[in-house]
Amino acid sequence: MAIRIQEILDHLIEPVGRLSVTVDTLKSGDPSTEVKGIATTFMATHHVIQTAIDRGVNLLITHEGTFYHHHDQIEPLLSDSVYLAKQKLIEESGIAIFRFHDYWHRYRPDGIMTGLIQALDWTSYVTENRPAASLLRIPPMTVEELAGYLKSKLGISFVRAAGDLSMTCTRVGLLAGYRGGGGMAIPLFQKDGVDVIIAGEGPEWETPEYVRDAVHQGRKRAFIALGHAESEEPGMKYLAEMLKAKFPDLPVHFIAEKQVFQSI
Amino acid sequence: MAIRIQEILDHLIEPVGRLSVTVDTLKSGDPSTEVKGIATTFMATHHVIQTAIDRGVNLLITHEGTFYHHHDQIEPLLSDSVYLAKQKLIEESGIAIFRFHDYWHRYRPDGIMTGLIQALDWTSYVTENRPAASLLRIPPMTVEELAGYLKSKLGISFVRAAGDLSMTCTRVGLLAGYRGGGGMAIPLFQKDGVDVIIAGEGPEWETPEYVRDAVHQGRKRAFIALGHAESEEPGMKYLAEMLKAKFPDLPVHFIAEKQVFQSI
Repeated sequence: MAIRIQEILDHLIEPVGRLSVTVDTLKSGDPSTEVKGIATTFMATHHVIQTAIDRGVNLLITHEGTFYHHHDQIEPLLSDSVYLAKQKLIEESGIAIFRFHDYWHRYRPDGIMTGLIQALDWTSYVTENRPAASLLRIPPMTVEELAGYLKSKLGISFVRAAGDLSMTCTRVGLLAGYRGGGGMAIPLFQKDGVDVIIAGEGPEWETPEYVRDAVHQGRKRAFIALGHAESEEPGMKYLAEMLKAKFPDLPVHFIAEKQVFQSI
Repeated sequence: MAIRIQEILDHLIEPVGRLSVTVDTLKSGDPSTEVKGIATTFMATHHVIQTAIDRGVNLLITHEGTFYHHHDQIEPLLSDSVYLAKQKLIEESGIAIFRFHDYWHRYRPDGIMTGLIQALDWTSYVTENRPAASLLRIPPMTVEELAGYLKSKLGISFVRAAGDLSMTCTRVGLLAGYRGGGGMAIPLFQKDGVDVIIAGEGPEWETPEYVRDAVHQGRKRAFIALGHAESEEPGMKYLAEMLKAKFPDLPVHFIAEKQVFQSI
Protein backbone atom coordinates (compact mmCIF):
# COMPACT_ATOMS: atom_id res chain seq x y z
CA MET A 1 0.00 0.00 0.00
CA ALA A 2 1.33 3.42 -0.94
CA ILE A 3 2.77 5.51 1.88
CA ARG A 4 2.42 9.28 1.51
CA ILE A 5 5.05 11.78 2.68
CA GLN A 6 2.57 13.18 5.20
CA GLU A 7 2.31 9.78 6.89
CA ILE A 8 6.08 9.74 7.49
CA LEU A 9 5.97 13.27 8.89
CA ASP A 10 3.03 12.41 11.16
CA HIS A 11 4.93 9.40 12.41
CA LEU A 12 7.99 11.54 13.17
CA ILE A 13 6.00 14.23 14.96
CA GLU A 14 3.71 11.93 16.93
CA PRO A 15 5.92 11.24 20.00
CA VAL A 16 6.28 14.98 20.65
CA GLY A 17 2.92 16.38 19.54
CA ARG A 18 2.61 19.20 17.06
CA LEU A 19 4.67 22.29 17.98
CA SER A 20 3.08 25.65 17.24
CA VAL A 21 6.43 27.37 16.72
CA THR A 22 9.09 25.34 14.98
CA VAL A 23 11.58 25.41 12.12
CA ASP A 24 10.50 21.84 11.32
CA THR A 25 8.39 22.25 8.21
CA LEU A 26 8.24 20.75 4.75
CA LYS A 27 10.56 23.06 2.80
CA SER A 28 9.82 21.66 -0.65
CA GLY A 29 7.70 18.95 -2.26
CA ASP A 30 4.10 17.81 -1.90
CA PRO A 31 3.04 15.97 1.28
CA SER A 32 0.52 13.87 -0.65
CA THR A 33 3.23 12.31 -2.86
CA GLU A 34 3.85 8.61 -2.50
CA VAL A 35 7.21 7.92 -0.84
CA LYS A 36 9.65 6.16 -3.15
CA GLY A 37 12.65 6.38 -0.90
CA ILE A 38 13.78 8.25 2.22
CA ALA A 39 17.16 9.66 3.16
CA THR A 40 18.29 11.32 6.37
CA THR A 41 21.23 13.67 6.69
CA PHE A 42 22.72 16.30 8.98
CA MET A 43 22.30 19.02 6.39
CA ALA A 44 20.87 19.00 2.88
CA THR A 45 24.00 20.16 1.09
CA HIS A 46 24.04 20.28 -2.70
CA HIS A 47 26.02 17.03 -2.71
CA VAL A 48 23.58 15.33 -0.33
CA ILE A 49 20.54 16.39 -2.35
CA GLN A 50 22.14 15.14 -5.58
CA THR A 51 23.11 11.85 -3.94
CA ALA A 52 19.56 11.42 -2.62
CA ILE A 53 18.08 12.05 -6.08
CA ASP A 54 20.56 9.60 -7.65
CA ARG A 55 19.39 6.94 -5.21
CA GLY A 56 15.73 7.44 -6.05
CA VAL A 57 14.92 9.24 -2.80
CA ASN A 58 11.99 11.63 -2.90
CA LEU A 59 11.86 12.51 0.83
CA LEU A 60 15.02 13.97 2.34
CA ILE A 61 14.98 14.56 6.08
CA THR A 62 17.54 17.13 7.19
CA HIS A 63 18.47 18.28 10.68
CA GLU A 64 19.76 21.74 9.75
CA GLY A 65 18.36 24.27 7.31
CA THR A 66 19.19 23.98 3.64
CA PHE A 67 20.24 27.61 3.09
CA TYR A 68 22.85 28.37 5.75
CA HIS A 69 20.46 29.97 8.22
CA HIS A 70 18.57 28.53 11.18
CA HIS A 71 15.40 30.45 10.30
CA ASP A 72 15.62 30.06 6.50
CA GLN A 73 16.31 33.72 5.91
CA ILE A 74 16.73 33.49 2.13
CA GLU A 75 16.04 37.10 1.09
CA PRO A 76 19.74 38.07 1.09
CA LEU A 77 20.44 35.04 -1.12
CA LEU A 78 17.82 35.60 -3.81
CA SER A 79 20.42 36.76 -6.35
CA ASP A 80 23.19 34.46 -5.09
CA SER A 81 24.41 31.96 -7.69
CA VAL A 82 25.03 29.18 -5.15
CA TYR A 83 21.52 29.55 -3.76
CA LEU A 84 19.98 29.70 -7.23
CA ALA A 85 21.74 26.56 -8.48
CA LYS A 86 20.76 24.63 -5.35
CA GLN A 87 17.18 25.85 -5.45
CA LYS A 88 16.96 24.88 -9.14
CA LEU A 89 18.08 21.33 -8.33
CA ILE A 90 15.43 21.08 -5.61
CA GLU A 91 12.64 22.45 -7.78
CA GLU A 92 13.46 20.48 -10.90
CA SER A 93 13.81 17.21 -9.03
CA GLY A 94 10.63 17.75 -7.02
CA ILE A 95 12.36 16.25 -3.98
CA ALA A 96 10.60 16.85 -0.68
CA ILE A 97 12.85 18.24 2.05
CA PHE A 98 11.59 18.06 5.61
CA ARG A 99 13.51 19.62 8.45
CA PHE A 100 13.58 17.48 11.58
CA HIS A 101 15.34 19.51 14.21
CA ASP A 102 13.11 20.69 17.04
CA TYR A 103 11.03 17.49 17.22
CA TRP A 104 14.04 15.19 17.21
CA HIS A 105 15.67 17.17 20.03
CA ARG A 106 12.40 16.90 21.98
CA TYR A 107 12.24 13.12 21.86
CA ARG A 108 12.98 11.67 25.31
CA PRO A 109 15.82 10.95 25.28
CA ASP A 110 16.80 13.46 22.57
CA GLY A 111 17.13 11.50 19.30
CA ILE A 112 20.31 13.31 18.31
CA MET A 113 21.88 12.51 21.68
CA THR A 114 20.81 8.86 21.53
CA GLY A 115 22.51 8.49 18.16
CA LEU A 116 25.67 10.21 19.37
CA ILE A 117 25.91 8.08 22.52
CA GLN A 118 25.36 4.90 20.47
CA ALA A 119 28.06 5.95 18.00
CA LEU A 120 30.43 6.43 20.93
CA ASP A 121 29.49 3.00 22.41
CA TRP A 122 28.68 4.79 25.64
CA THR A 123 25.04 3.78 26.19
CA SER A 124 25.86 1.81 29.35
CA TYR A 125 27.80 4.75 30.82
CA VAL A 126 24.90 7.22 30.87
CA THR A 127 23.98 8.30 34.40
CA GLU A 128 21.36 10.87 33.45
CA ASN A 129 19.67 12.15 30.30
CA ARG A 130 18.43 15.73 30.56
CA PRO A 131 16.62 17.65 27.84
CA ALA A 132 19.78 19.42 26.62
CA ALA A 133 22.64 17.40 28.09
CA SER A 134 23.56 13.88 29.10
CA LEU A 135 25.81 12.99 32.02
CA LEU A 136 28.05 9.94 31.77
CA ARG A 137 30.68 8.14 33.81
CA ILE A 138 33.20 6.65 31.40
CA PRO A 139 36.29 4.51 32.09
CA PRO A 140 39.10 6.84 33.24
CA MET A 141 41.32 8.22 30.49
CA THR A 142 43.24 11.42 29.86
CA VAL A 143 41.61 14.21 27.88
CA GLU A 144 44.09 13.55 25.09
CA GLU A 145 43.13 9.85 25.03
CA LEU A 146 39.47 10.86 25.09
CA ALA A 147 40.02 13.12 22.07
CA GLY A 148 41.61 10.20 20.23
CA TYR A 149 38.69 7.94 21.17
CA LEU A 150 36.13 10.48 19.92
CA LYS A 151 37.97 10.93 16.62
CA SER A 152 38.24 7.21 16.08
CA LYS A 153 34.59 6.44 16.95
CA LEU A 154 33.18 9.32 14.90
CA GLY A 155 35.64 8.95 12.04
CA ILE A 156 36.74 12.58 12.17
CA SER A 157 40.17 14.08 11.59
CA PHE A 158 40.39 16.56 14.45
CA VAL A 159 38.67 17.96 17.52
CA ARG A 160 39.47 21.17 19.39
CA ALA A 161 40.29 20.90 23.07
CA ALA A 162 40.71 23.48 25.85
CA GLY A 163 42.09 22.86 29.32
CA ASP A 164 44.50 20.34 30.77
CA LEU A 165 44.91 17.54 28.20
CA SER A 166 46.91 15.36 30.57
CA MET A 167 44.25 15.22 33.28
CA THR A 168 42.34 12.00 33.83
CA CYS A 169 38.62 12.34 33.30
CA THR A 170 35.69 10.06 33.99
CA ARG A 171 32.65 12.31 34.53
CA VAL A 172 31.48 13.65 31.18
CA GLY A 173 28.87 16.24 30.23
CA LEU A 174 27.78 15.68 26.63
CA LEU A 175 25.95 18.35 24.60
CA ALA A 176 25.21 17.99 20.90
CA GLY A 177 24.99 20.79 18.33
CA TYR A 178 25.14 24.44 19.32
CA ARG A 179 24.85 23.78 23.04
CA GLY A 180 28.45 24.35 24.04
CA GLY A 181 27.77 27.91 25.24
CA GLY A 182 28.39 28.96 28.82
CA GLY A 183 24.74 29.06 29.88
CA MET A 184 24.27 25.35 29.25
CA ALA A 185 27.78 23.99 29.74
CA ILE A 186 29.36 25.86 32.68
CA PRO A 187 26.81 24.78 35.33
CA LEU A 188 27.64 21.14 34.55
CA PHE A 189 31.13 21.69 35.96
CA GLN A 190 30.08 23.39 39.17
CA LYS A 191 26.70 21.79 39.93
CA ASP A 192 27.25 18.31 38.48
CA GLY A 193 30.98 17.96 38.99
CA VAL A 194 31.84 16.85 35.47
CA ASP A 195 35.54 16.74 34.57
CA VAL A 196 35.11 17.36 30.88
CA ILE A 197 32.43 18.73 28.60
CA ILE A 198 32.10 17.45 25.06
CA ALA A 199 29.96 19.65 22.81
CA GLY A 200 29.32 20.38 19.17
CA GLU A 201 30.08 24.08 19.00
CA GLY A 202 29.61 27.22 21.09
CA PRO A 203 30.99 30.75 21.40
CA GLU A 204 34.73 30.62 21.96
CA TRP A 205 34.76 33.29 24.70
CA GLU A 206 32.37 31.35 26.92
CA THR A 207 33.03 27.74 28.00
CA PRO A 208 36.61 27.44 26.66
CA GLU A 209 37.66 30.62 28.50
CA TYR A 210 35.94 29.43 31.68
CA VAL A 211 37.94 26.21 31.41
CA ARG A 212 41.15 28.18 30.88
CA ASP A 213 40.53 30.14 34.09
CA ALA A 214 39.58 26.98 35.99
CA VAL A 215 42.82 25.26 34.98
CA HIS A 216 44.83 28.38 35.88
CA GLN A 217 43.24 28.15 39.34
CA GLY A 218 44.43 24.56 39.67
CA ARG A 219 41.12 22.85 38.89
CA LYS A 220 40.93 19.84 36.60
CA ARG A 221 38.54 20.79 33.84
CA ALA A 222 38.50 20.45 30.06
CA PHE A 223 36.30 21.15 27.06
CA ILE A 224 36.22 19.36 23.73
CA ALA A 225 34.48 20.84 20.68
CA LEU A 226 33.60 18.03 18.28
CA GLY A 227 32.18 20.30 15.59
CA HIS A 228 28.47 20.92 15.09
CA ALA A 229 27.87 18.41 12.28
CA GLU A 230 30.25 15.90 13.85
CA SER A 231 28.14 15.88 17.02
CA GLU A 232 24.76 15.63 15.29
CA GLU A 233 25.30 13.47 12.22
CA PRO A 234 25.18 10.20 14.22
CA GLY A 235 21.71 11.18 15.44
CA MET A 236 20.50 11.44 11.86
CA LYS A 237 22.04 8.05 11.06
CA TYR A 238 20.16 6.64 14.04
CA LEU A 239 16.97 8.17 12.65
CA ALA A 240 17.49 6.27 9.38
CA GLU A 241 17.77 3.01 11.34
CA MET A 242 14.58 3.83 13.22
CA LEU A 243 12.68 4.55 10.01
CA LYS A 244 14.05 1.38 8.39
CA ALA A 245 12.63 -0.68 11.25
CA LYS A 246 9.27 1.10 11.12
CA PHE A 247 8.88 1.08 7.31
CA PRO A 248 10.66 -2.10 6.22
CA ASP A 249 9.24 -1.95 2.68
CA LEU A 250 10.69 1.51 1.96
CA PRO A 251 14.31 2.13 0.94
CA VAL A 252 15.83 4.27 3.72
CA HIS A 253 19.31 5.75 3.40
CA PHE A 254 21.57 7.80 5.58
CA ILE A 255 23.76 10.21 3.61
CA ALA A 256 26.96 11.38 5.29
CA GLU A 257 29.07 14.41 4.45
CA LYS A 258 32.78 15.01 4.90
CA GLN A 259 33.86 17.27 7.77
CA VAL A 260 33.24 20.81 6.55
CA PHE A 261 36.47 22.06 8.14
CA GLN A 262 40.00 20.84 7.92
CA SER A 263 42.47 21.81 10.63
CA ILE A 264 45.65 23.18 9.11
CA MET B 1 50.75 65.51 36.64
CA ALA B 2 48.58 62.64 37.76
CA ILE B 3 46.37 61.07 35.10
CA ARG B 4 43.07 59.64 36.36
CA ILE B 5 41.44 56.50 34.97
CA GLN B 6 38.50 58.59 33.75
CA GLU B 7 40.85 60.64 31.54
CA ILE B 8 42.03 57.48 29.76
CA LEU B 9 38.45 56.33 29.25
CA ASP B 10 37.42 59.75 27.95
CA HIS B 11 40.32 59.66 25.52
CA LEU B 12 39.30 56.21 24.27
CA ILE B 13 35.65 57.15 23.84
CA GLU B 14 36.20 60.57 22.28
CA PRO B 15 36.59 59.57 18.59
CA VAL B 16 33.25 57.74 18.67
CA GLY B 17 31.18 59.83 21.07
CA ARG B 18 29.40 58.36 24.06
CA LEU B 19 27.15 55.40 23.18
CA SER B 20 23.87 55.17 25.06
CA VAL B 21 23.75 51.37 24.84
CA THR B 22 27.07 49.58 25.14
CA VAL B 23 28.83 46.77 27.00
CA ASP B 24 31.83 49.11 27.32
CA THR B 25 31.71 50.13 30.96
CA LEU B 26 34.09 50.20 33.89
CA LYS B 27 33.53 46.75 35.41
CA SER B 28 35.62 47.29 38.56
CA GLY B 29 37.75 50.01 40.15
CA ASP B 30 37.32 53.73 40.77
CA PRO B 31 37.52 56.12 37.79
CA SER B 32 39.07 58.86 39.95
CA THR B 33 42.12 56.71 40.78
CA GLU B 34 45.48 57.85 39.46
CA VAL B 35 46.73 55.55 36.70
CA LYS B 36 49.92 53.72 37.67
CA GLY B 37 50.06 51.46 34.63
CA ILE B 38 47.82 50.31 31.79
CA ALA B 39 47.51 46.92 30.14
CA THR B 40 45.42 45.89 27.16
CA THR B 41 44.33 42.33 26.39
CA PHE B 42 41.81 40.37 24.33
CA MET B 43 40.13 39.00 27.45
CA ALA B 44 40.78 39.54 31.13
CA THR B 45 41.48 35.91 32.00
CA HIS B 46 42.61 35.02 35.51
CA HIS B 47 46.17 34.72 34.20
CA VAL B 48 46.00 38.10 32.44
CA ILE B 49 44.64 39.87 35.52
CA GLN B 50 47.35 38.34 37.73
CA THR B 51 50.06 39.30 35.21
CA ALA B 52 48.72 42.86 35.05
CA ILE B 53 48.76 43.16 38.86
CA ASP B 54 52.30 41.73 39.00
CA ARG B 55 53.42 44.44 36.56
CA GLY B 56 51.93 47.25 38.63
CA VAL B 57 49.01 47.84 36.28
CA ASN B 58 45.88 49.33 37.83
CA LEU B 59 43.87 49.82 34.61
CA LEU B 60 43.24 46.74 32.49
CA ILE B 61 41.49 47.30 29.17
CA THR B 62 39.80 44.16 27.86
CA HIS B 63 38.00 43.55 24.57
CA GLU B 64 35.74 40.73 25.73
CA GLY B 65 33.82 40.33 28.96
CA THR B 66 35.57 38.98 32.03
CA PHE B 67 32.97 36.36 32.95
CA TYR B 68 32.39 34.29 29.82
CA HIS B 69 29.31 36.18 28.63
CA HIS B 70 28.93 39.10 26.22
CA HIS B 71 26.42 40.84 28.48
CA ASP B 72 28.07 40.02 31.82
CA GLN B 73 25.30 37.70 32.92
CA ILE B 74 26.88 36.64 36.20
CA GLU B 75 23.81 35.46 38.15
CA PRO B 76 24.32 31.79 37.14
CA LEU B 77 27.94 32.04 38.32
CA LEU B 78 27.38 33.52 41.77
CA SER B 79 28.12 30.21 43.51
CA ASP B 80 30.72 29.06 40.97
CA SER B 81 34.17 28.54 42.46
CA VAL B 82 36.01 29.75 39.32
CA TYR B 83 33.97 32.96 39.25
CA LEU B 84 34.40 33.52 42.99
CA ALA B 85 38.19 33.10 42.90
CA LYS B 86 38.51 35.46 39.93
CA GLN B 87 36.17 38.03 41.46
CA LYS B 88 38.14 37.86 44.74
CA LEU B 89 41.38 38.62 42.86
CA ILE B 90 39.76 41.61 41.16
CA GLU B 91 38.26 43.00 44.36
CA GLU B 92 41.29 42.48 46.57
CA SER B 93 43.67 44.01 44.04
CA GLY B 94 41.40 46.97 43.35
CA ILE B 95 42.35 46.76 39.67
CA ALA B 96 40.12 48.73 37.32
CA ILE B 97 38.81 46.71 34.36
CA PHE B 98 37.37 48.63 31.43
CA ARG B 99 35.77 46.86 28.51
CA PHE B 100 36.65 48.39 25.17
CA HIS B 101 34.66 46.50 22.59
CA ASP B 102 31.90 48.54 20.94
CA TYR B 103 33.88 51.77 20.80
CA TRP B 104 36.99 50.17 19.35
CA HIS B 105 34.93 48.46 16.63
CA ARG B 106 33.34 51.85 15.83
CA TYR B 107 36.64 53.60 15.21
CA ARG B 108 37.07 54.30 11.48
CA PRO B 109 38.71 52.14 10.42
CA ASP B 110 37.76 49.62 13.13
CA GLY B 111 40.66 49.52 15.62
CA ILE B 112 40.54 45.73 15.88
CA MET B 113 40.71 45.40 12.10
CA THR B 114 43.56 47.91 11.82
CA GLY B 115 45.61 45.87 14.30
CA LEU B 116 44.84 42.62 12.52
CA ILE B 117 45.77 44.01 9.10
CA GLN B 118 49.01 45.45 10.50
CA ALA B 119 49.88 42.11 12.13
CA LEU B 120 49.37 40.45 8.75
CA ASP B 121 51.56 43.07 7.00
CA TRP B 122 48.64 43.69 4.64
CA THR B 123 48.05 47.43 5.10
CA SER B 124 49.02 48.21 1.51
CA TYR B 125 46.68 45.54 0.13
CA VAL B 126 43.44 47.00 1.55
CA THR B 127 41.03 48.06 -1.19
CA GLU B 128 38.14 49.03 1.09
CA ASN B 129 37.43 49.29 4.80
CA ARG B 130 33.76 48.87 5.73
CA PRO B 131 32.31 49.04 9.22
CA ALA B 132 32.31 45.24 9.67
CA ALA B 133 34.64 43.93 6.96
CA SER B 134 37.73 44.88 5.00
CA LEU B 135 38.36 43.90 1.40
CA LEU B 136 41.91 43.22 0.26
CA ARG B 137 43.78 42.15 -2.84
CA ILE B 138 46.78 40.10 -1.76
CA PRO B 139 49.55 38.47 -3.84
CA PRO B 140 48.16 35.24 -5.33
CA MET B 141 48.64 32.12 -3.23
CA THR B 142 46.74 28.91 -2.59
CA VAL B 143 44.35 28.70 0.34
CA GLU B 144 46.73 26.25 1.97
CA GLU B 145 49.63 28.68 1.57
CA LEU B 146 47.41 31.45 2.90
CA ALA B 147 46.62 29.35 5.98
CA GLY B 148 50.34 28.88 6.55
CA TYR B 149 50.94 32.60 6.17
CA LEU B 150 48.22 33.47 8.68
CA LYS B 151 49.56 30.97 11.23
CA SER B 152 53.08 32.26 10.86
CA LYS B 153 52.17 35.97 11.07
CA LEU B 154 49.79 35.53 14.03
CA GLY B 155 51.92 32.93 15.80
CA ILE B 156 49.11 30.40 16.07
CA SER B 157 49.23 26.63 15.81
CA PHE B 158 46.21 25.94 13.60
CA VAL B 159 43.37 27.48 11.63
CA ARG B 160 40.24 25.75 10.30
CA ALA B 161 39.59 25.92 6.59
CA ALA B 162 36.59 25.00 4.43
CA GLY B 163 36.49 24.79 0.64
CA ASP B 164 39.11 24.09 -1.98
CA LEU B 165 42.52 24.41 -0.33
CA SER B 166 44.39 24.12 -3.63
CA MET B 167 42.67 27.07 -5.31
CA THR B 168 44.63 30.27 -5.84
CA CYS B 169 43.15 33.27 -4.08
CA THR B 170 43.85 36.98 -4.24
CA ARG B 171 40.63 38.76 -3.28
CA VAL B 172 40.11 38.50 0.48
CA GLY B 173 37.21 39.44 2.73
CA LEU B 174 38.46 39.89 6.30
CA LEU B 175 36.12 39.90 9.30
CA ALA B 176 37.38 39.94 12.89
CA GLY B 177 35.69 38.38 15.91
CA TYR B 178 32.23 36.84 15.71
CA ARG B 179 31.48 38.16 12.25
CA GLY B 180 31.99 34.97 10.28
CA GLY B 181 28.24 34.24 10.13
CA GLY B 182 26.39 34.00 6.84
CA GLY B 183 24.62 37.34 7.06
CA MET B 184 27.89 39.27 7.04
CA ALA B 185 30.19 36.91 5.15
CA ILE B 186 28.18 35.31 2.32
CA PRO B 187 27.36 38.57 0.47
CA LEU B 188 31.08 39.28 0.16
CA PHE B 189 31.39 36.27 -2.16
CA GLN B 190 28.49 37.13 -4.43
CA LYS B 191 28.43 40.92 -4.35
CA ASP B 192 32.13 41.67 -3.92
CA GLY B 193 33.63 38.68 -5.68
CA VAL B 194 36.05 37.67 -2.95
CA ASP B 195 37.77 34.29 -3.33
CA VAL B 196 38.28 33.63 0.34
CA ILE B 197 36.86 34.89 3.60
CA ILE B 198 39.00 35.01 6.70
CA ALA B 199 37.03 35.45 9.91
CA GLY B 200 37.34 34.93 13.64
CA GLU B 201 34.43 32.61 14.31
CA GLY B 202 30.84 32.08 13.21
CA PRO B 203 28.15 29.38 13.21
CA GLU B 204 29.45 26.28 11.45
CA TRP B 205 26.23 25.66 9.47
CA GLU B 206 26.34 29.07 7.81
CA THR B 207 29.38 30.31 5.82
CA PRO B 208 31.37 27.03 5.84
CA GLU B 209 28.37 25.10 4.46
CA TYR B 210 27.75 27.78 1.84
CA VAL B 211 31.38 27.39 0.76
CA ARG B 212 31.00 23.60 0.63
CA ASP B 213 28.03 23.96 -1.72
CA ALA B 214 29.82 26.57 -3.83
CA VAL B 215 32.83 24.29 -4.31
CA HIS B 216 30.54 21.35 -5.15
CA GLN B 217 29.04 23.55 -7.87
CA GLY B 218 32.52 24.16 -9.30
CA ARG B 219 33.06 27.63 -7.86
CA LYS B 220 36.35 28.64 -6.30
CA ARG B 221 35.58 29.76 -2.78
CA ALA B 222 37.06 29.15 0.63
CA PHE B 223 36.63 30.12 4.26
CA ILE B 224 39.25 30.28 6.98
CA ALA B 225 38.32 30.53 10.68
CA LEU B 226 41.24 32.02 12.58
CA GLY B 227 39.60 31.71 15.99
CA HIS B 228 37.89 34.58 17.79
CA ALA B 229 40.77 35.62 20.05
CA GLU B 230 43.31 34.97 17.31
CA SER B 231 41.54 37.49 15.07
CA GLU B 232 41.09 40.20 17.72
CA GLU B 233 44.17 40.02 19.91
CA PRO B 234 46.34 41.99 17.42
CA GLY B 235 43.83 44.84 17.63
CA MET B 236 44.34 45.04 21.38
CA LYS B 237 48.10 45.00 20.92
CA TYR B 238 47.70 47.90 18.49
CA LEU B 239 45.65 49.72 21.13
CA ALA B 240 48.56 49.41 23.58
CA GLU B 241 50.87 51.01 21.00
CA MET B 242 48.41 53.85 20.46
CA LEU B 243 48.13 54.49 24.19
CA LYS B 244 51.92 54.36 24.60
CA ALA B 245 52.28 57.10 21.99
CA LYS B 246 49.55 59.24 23.56
CA PHE B 247 50.64 58.77 27.19
CA PRO B 248 54.44 58.39 26.96
CA ASP B 249 54.95 58.82 30.72
CA LEU B 250 52.68 55.91 31.63
CA PRO B 251 53.78 52.26 31.52
CA VAL B 252 51.56 50.57 28.92
CA HIS B 253 51.62 46.80 28.40
CA PHE B 254 49.93 44.38 26.07
CA ILE B 255 49.26 41.01 27.68
CA ALA B 256 48.85 38.04 25.34
CA GLU B 257 47.23 34.71 26.05
CA LYS B 258 47.89 31.28 24.56
CA GLN B 259 45.38 29.95 22.02
CA VAL B 260 42.47 28.68 24.10
CA PHE B 261 42.02 25.63 21.85
CA GLN B 262 44.45 23.04 20.64
CA SER B 263 43.61 21.05 17.55
CA ILE B 264 44.06 17.33 18.23
